Amino acid sequence: MPENDPHENATLSSTLQLAMELMRRPSVTPDDVGCQELMIERLERLGFHIERLPFGDVENFWAVRGHHGPVLAFAGHTDVVPSGPDVLWEYPPFEPRIDDEGMLCGRGAADMKGSLAAMLTAVERFVTAHPDHDGKIAFLITSDEEGPAIDGTRAVVEHLRETHERLDYCIVGEPSSTNELADTIKNGRRGSLGGVLHVKGIQGHVAYPHLARNPIHETAPALDALVREHWDGGNAFFPATSFQISNIRSGTGATNVIPGELEVIFNFRYSTEVTYQQLQERTQAILDAHGLDYRLDWTLNGEPFLTAEGELVAASLAGVEEVLRQRPELSTAGGTSDGRFIATLGAQVVELGPLNATIHKVNERVRAADLDTLSDIYEAILRRLFA
Amino acid sequence: MPENDPHENATLSSTLQLAMELMRRPSVTPDDVGCQELMIERLERLGFHIERLPFGDVENFWAVRGHHGPVLAFAGHTDVVPSGPDVLWEYPPFEPRIDDEGMLCGRGAADMKGSLAAMLTAVERFVTAHPDHDGKIAFLITSDEEGPAIDGTRAVVEHLRETHERLDYCIVGEPSSTNELADTIKNGRRGSLGGVLHVKGIQGHVAYPHLARNPIHETAPALDALVREHWDGGNAFFPATSFQISNIRSGTGATNVIPGELEVIFNFRYSTEVTYQQLQERTQAILDAHGLDYRLDWTLNGEPFLTAEGELVAASLAGVEEVLRQRPELSTAGGTSDGRFIATLGAQVVELGPLNATIHKVNERVRAADLDTLSDIYEAILRRLFA
Repeated sequence: MPENDPHENATLSSTLQLAMELMRRPSVTPDDVGCQELMIERLERLGFHIERLPFGDVENFWAVRGHHGPVLAFAGHTDVVPSGPDVLWEYPPFEPRIDDEGMLCGRGAADMKGSLAAMLTAVERFVTAHPDHDGKIAFLITSDEEGPAIDGTRAVVEHLRETHERLDYCIVGEPSSTNELADTIKNGRRGSLGGVLHVKGIQGHVAYPHLARNPIHETAPALDALVREHWDGGNAFFPATSFQISNIRSGTGATNVIPGELEVIFNFRYSTEVTYQQLQERTQAILDAHGLDYRLDWTLNGEPFLTAEGELVAASLAGVEEVLRQRPELSTAGGTSDGRFIATLGAQVVELGPLNATIHKVNERVRAADLDTLSDIYEAILRRLFA
Repeated sequence: MPENDPHENATLSSTLQLAMELMRRPSVTPDDVGCQELMIERLERLGFHIERLPFGDVENFWAVRGHHGPVLAFAGHTDVVPSGPDVLWEYPPFEPRIDDEGMLCGRGAADMKGSLAAMLTAVERFVTAHPDHDGKIAFLITSDEEGPAIDGTRAVVEHLRETHERLDYCIVGEPSSTNELADTIKNGRRGSLGGVLHVKGIQGHVAYPHLARNPIHETAPALDALVREHWDGGNAFFPATSFQISNIRSGTGATNVIPGELEVIFNFRYSTEVTYQQLQERTQAILDAHGLDYRLDWTLNGEPFLTAEGELVAASLAGVEEVLRQRPELSTAGGTSDGRFIATLGAQVVELGPLNATIHKVNERVRAADLDTLSDIYEAILRRLFA
């Protein structure tokens, strides 16, 4: 890992220096490669109490500073998605640099080592200015958000639940911005419910269809009915529940054989207007109405959560407006995040981070100046809640 | 290849001896392993003129005896389908034997070395009794009916067309019988038309369906419409045209990705009430009506053929009735055969052979006595046409 010129680094903000230090570590899920120790070292210097919480091969930690009052946690992950072949990148993915256009380039710039650095420097400035702040400031950091996400935030949340740890507010550093920094704060996420459908038929020869039962023929109208179903109309905070088939597979490869079974994989992204149990029942009713001989296996990836209003949303909106002179939009669109686990503790949860245009892609990058601004926003929110 | 006890063989009919001699040769498509030379040797002894017609790695021959009048050809194939692992067989597949229940066991017993032997001994008896028979007797034999079937009967038929060879009647030795020997004569076959459909969508993330176009969702109602379509009602000789989807495939394997394309493979078995061009047009009209962005590739496996009536059907029905005292049924059901190629020469074509219950399976077998009876039936038909 080549080090940047120390002279050059000296001209960079503390946030950018820390972001680049984290990005030099190829912490592909579930590896942490020392990122968390780097954060822990600085948090200990600020007087944080550290609890290291490794589960399986995943490293996590929970850090707290303060003795009374509501708890605000900054949550995030040190792991990044794989970078793919280096040759596809303009610059090597784990040799971060700021290019001629002021973009910080490298894996993790946007998702989410930039946010981790911005949180940490925001807390450093705030604690220095307010050593006896109200409330408790915490960090909930994992090295598996991009992978199975079993031994990461989910396990830490279970630990916090068991030890009756209080959690009132949580800011997740996920890249929530769409076109400009902080144009969007995510104040919830849809639920995600997956299904794997196996339909049984009777295999046979295409020349003797009366001796067979073609599961493709029998399932086609049922799939059409599922696609046409109006699951709900959404509400003020959530778009309508959507149903998508991701995979379908049937057939032996031979062109003269009627297959004996069919597999369909589908996914619901659902609002708070329905429950996953209702979706399961209604799906099964449609399949039953079509007389299918089927097995259906469900996976609940996450229930929807919503932080409709409250101190955290108010402080976040006001914090952004103070720094940027623009009011962000609240949104619940997009994929799932670790917020789904944290919300089960009863905490108010928002996601607020840099632009997500390049995440999970080659040439991931983020405007370097945005990370300094993001740090200012995090500090402004802290001040509104705890100063 | 162990030889049967010569003493035991001496008690077997000429037909069964020849059938077993052919079955000892593991002539898996396109290998002939000397089967045709065995037949040629005996046909030359009867005064047949032999034309060997190898194409590619496929051996074929055309043999004729007689100088004037209509031509009756016996058609068949010396190749067999693979036997699979020997351990699955009660007896080794290429060591034919007659078991305690009088069944001739081994690969090719029913499909169709038994028929080849029955044809040859029938002709031997007939020619011995009627050395100056009417008409011309012919054999059209290939070693690729079970495989690609490009360089087999199809190529021989093209050769016969080019050399203006006359062909009036053709008896194909395919195993046409269902429950008892000669209960069914096939006097035609349905056409077979295959299609491969590629539907284009736009790939995306299941959380952002408005940015994608799901080809599974778009195609489901079109497939349902194709399945429900009444293509025709069949007629006195053909069942209704049937449409079957054999394969469907879409999806990246990932459960959160909307796929970008879908492949469907389907097949029509069609009657003489529609043409393949009509089926193509109607299929495309249904796909167009559903607004699909698609590519559709067609394969015409064979047009339907029908020998509704005439001298050959009459002689075949009467020949069976003479030997068995029972009238067979005429049928056009089932798969395709080389009859589809031969019919294009304008010949009357029937398929008449042993029971098809065990063909293409392990423990292929046929009642030994049925092959002697089949030989008698072939001889009776010959007598009715040429004696």
